[in-house]
Amino acid sequence: MAISRLIFGLTIALTSQADAHPNLILTEAGVERIRAELGAVPLFDATVARVKAEVDAEIELGIDTPIPKDLSGGYTHERHKRNFLVLQQAGALFQILEDEKYAVYVRDMLFRYEAMYKDLPLHPQQRSYARGRLFWQCLNDSNWLVYVSQAYDAIHDWLSEQERQTLEQNLFRPFADFISIESPQFFNRVHNHSTWGSAAVGMIGLVMEDEELVRRALYGIEDYNRGVGATDDDGGFIRVEGQRAGFLANLDAPFSPDGYYTEGPYYQRYAMYPFLVFAQSLHNVRPDLNIFEHKNSVLLKGVDALLSLSDADGEFFPLNDAQKGMSYRSRELVTAVDIAYHVGGRDAKLLSIAEEQGQVLLDDAGFSVAAAIRDGRAQPYEKSTINLTDGHDGRQGGVAVLRQGDEDLTLVFKYTAQGLSHGHYDKLSFSLYEKGDEVLQDYGMARFVNIGQKGGGNYLAENSTWAKQTISHNTLVRNETSHFEGRYEIGSEHHSELQFFDASDNGVQVVSAFEDDAYPGTVMQRTMALIKNERFEKPFLLDILKVISHTENQYDLPFYFMGQVMRANFAYESPAALRALGEKNGYQHLYLEGTGKPSGNNTVLSWMGHGKFYTLTSATHAADELLFTRIGANDPEFNLRRDAAFIIRRNGVANTVFATAVEPHGSYSPVSEIAINANSNIAELNVVYDDDDYTAVMIEDIQGHTSIFVLSNDDASASSEHELEIDGRTYEWWGPWHHSEI
Amino acid sequence: MAISRLIFGLTIALTSQADAHPNLILTEAGVERIRAELGAVPLFDATVARVKAEVDAEIELGIDTPIPKDLSGGYTHERHKRNFLVLQQAGALFQILEDEKYAVYVRDMLFRYEAMYKDLPLHPQQRSYARGRLFWQCLNDSNWLVYVSQAYDAIHDWLSEQERQTLEQNLFRPFADFISIESPQFFNRVHNHSTWGSAAVGMIGLVMEDEELVRRALYGIEDYNRGVGATDDDGGFIRVEGQRAGFLANLDAPFSPDGYYTEGPYYQRYAMYPFLVFAQSLHNVRPDLNIFEHKNSVLLKGVDALLSLSDADGEFFPLNDAQKGMSYRSRELVTAVDIAYHVGGRDAKLLSIAEEQGQVLLDDAGFSVAAAIRDGRAQPYEKSTINLTDGHDGRQGGVAVLRQGDEDLTLVFKYTAQGLSHGHYDKLSFSLYEKGDEVLQDYGMARFVNIGQKGGGNYLAENSTWAKQTISHNTLVRNETSHFEGRYEIGSEHHSELQFFDASDNGVQVVSAFEDDAYPGTVMQRTMALIKNERFEKPFLLDILKVISHTENQYDLPFYFMGQVMRANFAYESPAALRALGEKNGYQHLYLEGTGKPSGNNTVLSWMGHGKFYTLTSATHAADELLFTRIGANDPEFNLRRDAAFIIRRNGVANTVFATAVEPHGSYSPVSEIAINANSNIAELNVVYDDDDYTAVMIEDIQGHTSIFVLSNDDASASSEHELEIDGRTYEWWGPWHHSEI
Repeated sequence: MAISRLIFGLTIALTSQADAHPNLILTEAGVERIRAELGAVPLFDATVARVKAEVDAEIELGIDTPIPKDLSGGYTHERHKRNFLVLQQAGALFQILEDEKYAVYVRDMLFRYEAMYKDLPLHPQQRSYARGRLFWQCLNDSNWLVYVSQAYDAIHDWLSEQERQTLEQNLFRPFADFISIESPQFFNRVHNHSTWGSAAVGMIGLVMEDEELVRRALYGIEDYNRGVGATDDDGGFIRVEGQRAGFLANLDAPFSPDGYYTEGPYYQRYAMYPFLVFAQSLHNVRPDLNIFEHKNSVLLKGVDALLSLSDADGEFFPLNDAQKGMSYRSRELVTAVDIAYHVGGRDAKLLSIAEEQGQVLLDDAGFSVAAAIRDGRAQPYEKSTINLTDGHDGRQGGVAVLRQGDEDLTLVFKYTAQGLSHGHYDKLSFSLYEKGDEVLQDYGMARFVNIGQKGGGNYLAENSTWAKQTISHNTLVRNETSHFEGRYEIGSEHHSELQFFDASDNGVQVVSAFEDDAYPGTVMQRTMALIKNERFEKPFLLDILKVISHTENQYDLPFYFMGQVMRANFAYESPAALRALGEKNGYQHLYLEGTGKPSGNNTVLSWMGHGKFYTLTSATHAADELLFTRIGANDPEFNLRRDAAFIIRRNGVANTVFATAVEPHGSYSPVSEIAINANSNIAELNVVYDDDDYTAVMIEDIQGHTSIFVLSNDDASASSEHELEIDGRTYEWWGPWHHSEI
Repeated sequence: MAISRLIFGLTIALTSQADAHPNLILTEAGVERIRAELGAVPLFDATVARVKAEVDAEIELGIDTPIPKDLSGGYTHERHKRNFLVLQQAGALFQILEDEKYAVYVRDMLFRYEAMYKDLPLHPQQRSYARGRLFWQCLNDSNWLVYVSQAYDAIHDWLSEQERQTLEQNLFRPFADFISIESPQFFNRVHNHSTWGSAAVGMIGLVMEDEELVRRALYGIEDYNRGVGATDDDGGFIRVEGQRAGFLANLDAPFSPDGYYTEGPYYQRYAMYPFLVFAQSLHNVRPDLNIFEHKNSVLLKGVDALLSLSDADGEFFPLNDAQKGMSYRSRELVTAVDIAYHVGGRDAKLLSIAEEQGQVLLDDAGFSVAAAIRDGRAQPYEKSTINLTDGHDGRQGGVAVLRQGDEDLTLVFKYTAQGLSHGHYDKLSFSLYEKGDEVLQDYGMARFVNIGQKGGGNYLAENSTWAKQTISHNTLVRNETSHFEGRYEIGSEHHSELQFFDASDNGVQVVSAFEDDAYPGTVMQRTMALIKNERFEKPFLLDILKVISHTENQYDLPFYFMGQVMRANFAYESPAALRALGEKNGYQHLYLEGTGKPSGNNTVLSWMGHGKFYTLTSATHAADELLFTRIGANDPEFNLRRDAAFIIRRNGVANTVFATAVEPHGSYSPVSEIAINANSNIAELNVVYDDDDYTAVMIEDIQGHTSIFVLSNDDASASSEHELEIDGRTYEWWGPWHHSEI
């Protein structure tokens, strides 16, 4: 450590002499190039014009730095947030357009903050475990500093030495100290909060050439180990014994070697901005750190992973806490894509995403992207089937995304670790998409971000009582309790395990994983295959969930289908009054709309959503109960969506197999009023074999053609040879699964 | 009558000598022009290419004319439907491309039908009041003949005399007789069914040069007067005493002088095809009839009326029975727009609709449109505020559509007659749109047209028990009973009356109407204004509903808001179990989700839908009950959508005023996560004056600015002068309403 610190100190000294400002995300060379080509790079020029109009309007409006008072959604919060975004933009415009009015605006606003900050107490709202001063939480204060560092960098050389000293002494240094050494419970974590904190401290440190701040940002506060066992606002642990902190630790721990961020894509998107913008700054000022090569280029892999975790419309899969609709069109992904292109080998596929985004960063990276698009270098970004490991070492489960065709059918299968404090209790859950439309949904989170009327825009109580609970997901619930009892301290100790992932045959893509900790004494193994069979109009999903338990249980397997019921093949009772299905663990939020029994070997439910038809066919047992439910019970504030689910309930069994096909078919247009292929192609689906070694499912279509899918339950090796006789017929194959027409 | 018949006979004789085939929708001259310019008219060429691909695929597939068996949605129904569409297209392709394979295909299929038709019994499905032979109802048989007449016309001259004779004797003449003289209860009505029937008989009559059929089509079956008092499948009267029948009667009665079709735009769209295609044929073969000038050019006015009755996305307002999503992109509107352009003075605005449709008819009219678009003649179709009268004489109420901005806010206010058998019991109801999004919905119908799983694609029981009932609409319900007791025989005798319509001030557009028959002894007067106030971000709706009754009643005023509740300003109880709000008249389909009391003079409810915010502010009374409801009770088959409503219930009063503002504001993006203008701009809304002569509503905004809207309750004259003192202030104005800032 002593040697590395020494080297570090030397490096700072050297680079700070060599570099002039700006040098974070804009560089002198970059600015020169931008100024030379301005007016000849359409996407960049369009962004400049749009940003200029916005900033000019703000300048016209005048500066307002109100005394902090509100939660998110409230005026003072939104005003200070707008201020830091506009400051960053004004700084960039000053560099690009060489118009001093932008520098004056930045300087004047900075001095307003300088005048205010000295005497500013903690924010009056007491909701956060780490209150800020400008905002109700340190997190937003850190956002402010990440953006404002860039604005300061842009006008740094234009300011007088005296002005710089005043700002640094009265505003930036106290600000950086406040969010770090004075808020260690916030700063010294491995968490997206701390990523913002360390980027903020590091970036202002780079501009100020303050070695101590940069070191603090990279390595955390030394010898701080308080807070072990304490939790934050979301119930996440603040510190784990012996854990490292700082930017590098935050880069190591939450990212898997594949670039998957353990909290899920929604928070990965949020974290990517500070990760990348600070990394870009380090890349420019501290090239010796080789930050983009860190951990086998994990930051660049993270951008690819994130893009892969989006549906055909570019919207992120809402794994764990996530607000639906967030997409790669967000400003954070503009940053991510531009920087990844600029420093990451100029991958031409990223350019087509940038085209969809319709804007670029007003910096060196954004200019690179816009110029390359102008030069016609964009290539289509084709998302493929992937398997992303979770955990810093890639050994804590993962997420598989199976895709058939051009995202015609996309399966998202989750067998990850807990996902820190934003994790949900949904081991082996899945969601299914046809293009950008949800077929079977993951609920996402119960929160309306930044909408003041809804709990100040923060997490709602229903996020814990509903959205995080197991029953709100498409996965198995034992005895009406959530995985790990819904307890973070247990869940965060465990993760599911991949059995195998096989996308080698494009027609039959298979992923299989198991989970034996969610319910002690019960092992769940779930295998999901996307099958393209030429006798079917579209690919379909085969879902085989095998459960082995020491005890007899009640199992609930929900399917959150999106659309309106078309037909069910079983009789069911509709209650005269709707009551909650249970009292806790999320069940208190489900109304029971119908209860039935299977009419035969198969239970069939069809629905229509987004003008397309879907049929679920499941091999149910005579004693199963079939439940229609709807979200919304015990939700007096209307915080939850009134969406439907179909639940297969199997009671009083220990070991069992749920085998289900989900089949998209046909379409309906209210304009032509023509219903095409409105009926299922499956006549029969049966579990024809099941023991410890193998499980086999046979599907007969309505023309009488039959196919079989055989699964090796305990040998995931691709090089094992298998032979199995079923109903007098012998099947021989290599590897963990077999599929054939009979 | 004797003279007109004589003239008629002569005319037929003359024109039939002069004209060769085709002469219905394609003419010899037209075909010549098309052939000459083929390949140089992009939209026409694109349509030819698409239709050719479809027809070629059908030829490849081979001809199938199965024995009729199924209801709509079933195979035989959909196959015969596809056949007639393809026959019509193949005939056009033969004329345009001069490729005999299309003529051969048409001939061969016609002879398959000829071989089958002779011995074909009535369709086995017995659901219809007028069963067909190819289809379960005569209506679909008539569809078949309207299309097939065109196919026959296209290959008429190519067939041998012998072939023509065989087809006419064994297929067309018996077919025409079956749907007319053998099905008089279907043919001899004033109803969209009969429009199809008369067009079918008339068009085949024109091709066959069969004077008797053409006369029957135009004037109906003589001396037929059975069926008075009997009803059809939808509960509509089959015959009204002394009513004329035939095409001309159907043109006179259901259309108002403004071109509004009394059943509403959904059925107008459906009826437009036979109206226009037969009219076009008459225009070509019987120019002496001047059919397009009939009743002051009502057919052409009808096309304009229909286009006006669509939202910003081109989707028709779902007045009465209507499936949502139907739009001017439908094939019927392609016909309507092309023919209206071709024969109706070449209105360049229609061309932009045709561009949106992206296809044209493969006939003279379609070619005119495509060529004009190619020549750059298209002009934008800007929809404006309109008032359309209902009733053949324009004296049976109407529909007003108020539009602010570029369809930024659109109000649809219904004060029509019953709308024949497809009418709903919703006098003085309204729906509200922001661009193409529903803010307050009209439910539409309970039917999934052509989706076999849902009741054979036909009307569902819930259409009568829910969709037609008053409580399913945004209008007043007295004592939980529907208007006219929900009885067609009463409702069809009455209509609402316009008080005034005033769009002269674009900033304040007002419509007012009253209804005194829906509830005997109770008069309802509803006045709706779209107000553009510069202190408000967007225009808003002011709704004043004044009720005068001889008795004390319970009044329910529902608002079917589309979106998720953001905030309510009153406390309410949420029941532990959801029960139906009532037992009949639609109330049995509403779950009660919450019951509250006003917290002050104003009741305020905010919601978010389609990423936009809305706030309803109503001047409620302390004793009012406020109900949150949701559709779906007693709906075991999930035939209804689970949509919400907010109901203001006022009990034990005779005379009262409901005054409500519905205010769109702001927006939310899940990508930027920024909520703009999420809160209402209204601080207070009060009824400050109300007597027999005047009602006045005052609105104070959150900055303390006040405006007043004063309504003259019984003097609708634009030239009356008024003076009124309210709270010591005197208001003077001309005309039925006054609006001013205070």
